[in-house]
Amino acid sequence: MIINVNLAERGYDIVVERGALNRIGELLRLDRKVLVVTDSGVPREYAKTVAEACKSPVIVTVDAGEKSKSFATLETLCKAMLENGFTRTDCVVAVGGGVVGDLSGFAAASYMRGIDFYNIPTTVLSQVDSSIGGKVAINLDSVKNIVGAFYQPKKVVIDPDVLKTLPDRQIANGFAEAIKMGLTSDAGLFSIFENGDPYESIDEIIVRSLMVKKQIVEQDERESGLRKILNFGHTVGHGIESEGELSGLLHGECVGLGMLPMCSREVRERLLAVLGKVGLPTSLTLDVNKVLRAMEHDKKVVGGGNITVTYVNDVGKFELVTLPIEKLKENVRESLTK
Amino acid sequence: MIINVNLAERGYDIVVERGALNRIGELLRLDRKVLVVTDSGVPREYAKTVAEACKSPVIVTVDAGEKSKSFATLETLCKAMLENGFTRTDCVVAVGGGVVGDLSGFAAASYMRGIDFYNIPTTVLSQVDSSIGGKVAINLDSVKNIVGAFYQPKKVVIDPDVLKTLPDRQIANGFAEAIKMGLTSDAGLFSIFENGDPYESIDEIIVRSLMVKKQIVEQDERESGLRKILNFGHTVGHGIESEGELSGLLHGECVGLGMLPMCSREVRERLLAVLGKVGLPTSLTLDVNKVLRAMEHDKKVVGGGNITVTYVNDVGKFELVTLPIEKLKENVRESLTK
Repeated sequence: MIINVNLAERGYDIVVERGALNRIGELLRLDRKVLVVTDSGVPREYAKTVAEACKSPVIVTVDAGEKSKSFATLETLCKAMLENGFTRTDCVVAVGGGVVGDLSGFAAASYMRGIDFYNIPTTVLSQVDSSIGGKVAINLDSVKNIVGAFYQPKKVVIDPDVLKTLPDRQIANGFAEAIKMGLTSDAGLFSIFENGDPYESIDEIIVRSLMVKKQIVEQDERESGLRKILNFGHTVGHGIESEGELSGLLHGECVGLGMLPMCSREVRERLLAVLGKVGLPTSLTLDVNKVLRAMEHDKKVVGGGNITVTYVNDVGKFELVTLPIEKLKENVRESLTK
Repeated sequence: MIINVNLAERGYDIVVERGALNRIGELLRLDRKVLVVTDSGVPREYAKTVAEACKSPVIVTVDAGEKSKSFATLETLCKAMLENGFTRTDCVVAVGGGVVGDLSGFAAASYMRGIDFYNIPTTVLSQVDSSIGGKVAINLDSVKNIVGAFYQPKKVVIDPDVLKTLPDRQIANGFAEAIKMGLTSDAGLFSIFENGDPYESIDEIIVRSLMVKKQIVEQDERESGLRKILNFGHTVGHGIESEGELSGLLHGECVGLGMLPMCSREVRERLLAVLGKVGLPTSLTLDVNKVLRAMEHDKKVVGGGNITVTYVNDVGKFELVTLPIEKLKENVRESLTK
């Protein structure tokens, strides 16, 4: 199916289709110079399949992991284009997860002040979340996404078949963001996790998550307001993440935990059951006080007695609640420690 | 006076006013964290005056010259903001010529995906040309402006008083771009150079040049068509420039020469007189064959028997002419060698 993201002259289509990778030449305009960017964690065959459909491909494989979202790797991509004589009419294709998409999207946004960018996300997390929204970026001094652009792709191609090579833990990592979309905006999506078999319904999960995010992004392309609800679970999640790096927690695992303190007691019980069902952590194995300090250190929390967070009282609906930081900390302690 | 550049939600004002620098705190919103970027060739007092008007200034002085338009310096600016806790509501102010404006504009465009950018150009060249148009960029492997963004400033402040410290050669360097605007689009502006005293009329030259460029940029913000006429004289000029670096020619000096082959014989005679009057070169001291080879190497010329260039038959009007490269080379030989 095709989902159109409606952003006036920056609008684009997301194609969700099993087997799409094998007919990528029909879906994208590849009869030109194409920088195919992938990382060492992505099966090589995917980038190879794309390159074979290009008239003039240049494949760059960056190291897997956040460290590749750097000025140094960005420069490497731009140099690869320059050395191969890329002009404004050529393009960049990302084949990989969020790291590859964010990095190569920023390269496409900046090279000659912007050339065409296509995204082929290959993880559940990037398919449901980072493939939509136009946020591209690199990290600096371990601060994530601090340098970047708002730059929409020309097209996104999601082929759920590529997920068959993804480890279960990575699938659950992506489910966390889909559960977030369901909790805040689509009770039916949450119900797939609660009452259905999410592994069997992965196509529907992807499409419904994209529909939620699409509607939010269309109303707030540059994140000036509404779009902040996408940060549901992320205020606490980021606190866990900065501590969790030591214990090797994944982004989705932190977000899953981070949602717990932001729900009513009844919703929290249902969320706990869902997290457990898909194999996401249900309690914190880290020192909660360290997490709280990391959270306070986060720019969104520093410098005021109150904080506004997205809160879920009923599944599928959200509200913005302003509460004292102390109250938030109490919630975190109560819901994340046994 | 105030010139409004009308680009819908990205529109902004250019203030042209003697003494504006001394009341910069009234003109810009500086009651926040401000990264003041200048270079070692700009009188220190200018950046200091700006910093003194800021609530929380951080001054970064980069080396003068094109080498500062690099990924390394861009990273330095972003790090300076990160280390000083800049958020989305803080801003960047450029105090200097085109190098400082291009570099710090790109830093402002990218930091947190875009924060406010103010430009205070301090050379004739940047006042008449690079302060308008929203093109920000860095260089890579000595290819100019190959990585960047279209990013409009929030405001541009032009204080002609700052030009009193500028060497005559640098003033003539900027005049070349103003002469270009006159030749292609404003006969009255050209007449100031031909019949008047350009040094006495510098305020009018700045304003008229900005009016020409403003109208072109408003119609073609992202350089998809019309805006290419701003490249008048630059096809040949870039060829001279890449050779000229060895002989130390400035950008405007190359553009001045580059315009000569693109004019009718009658206009060329008048242009020669004007170039001589303001102290710009009137003939090539370089090997014309080397210039032609460098020109052909330029991406705009490679790969076809014909080339479309902007041509001036009558002062104040331009036309687009497609001609064989051999004919262009003949024109260059004829007009640039004695």
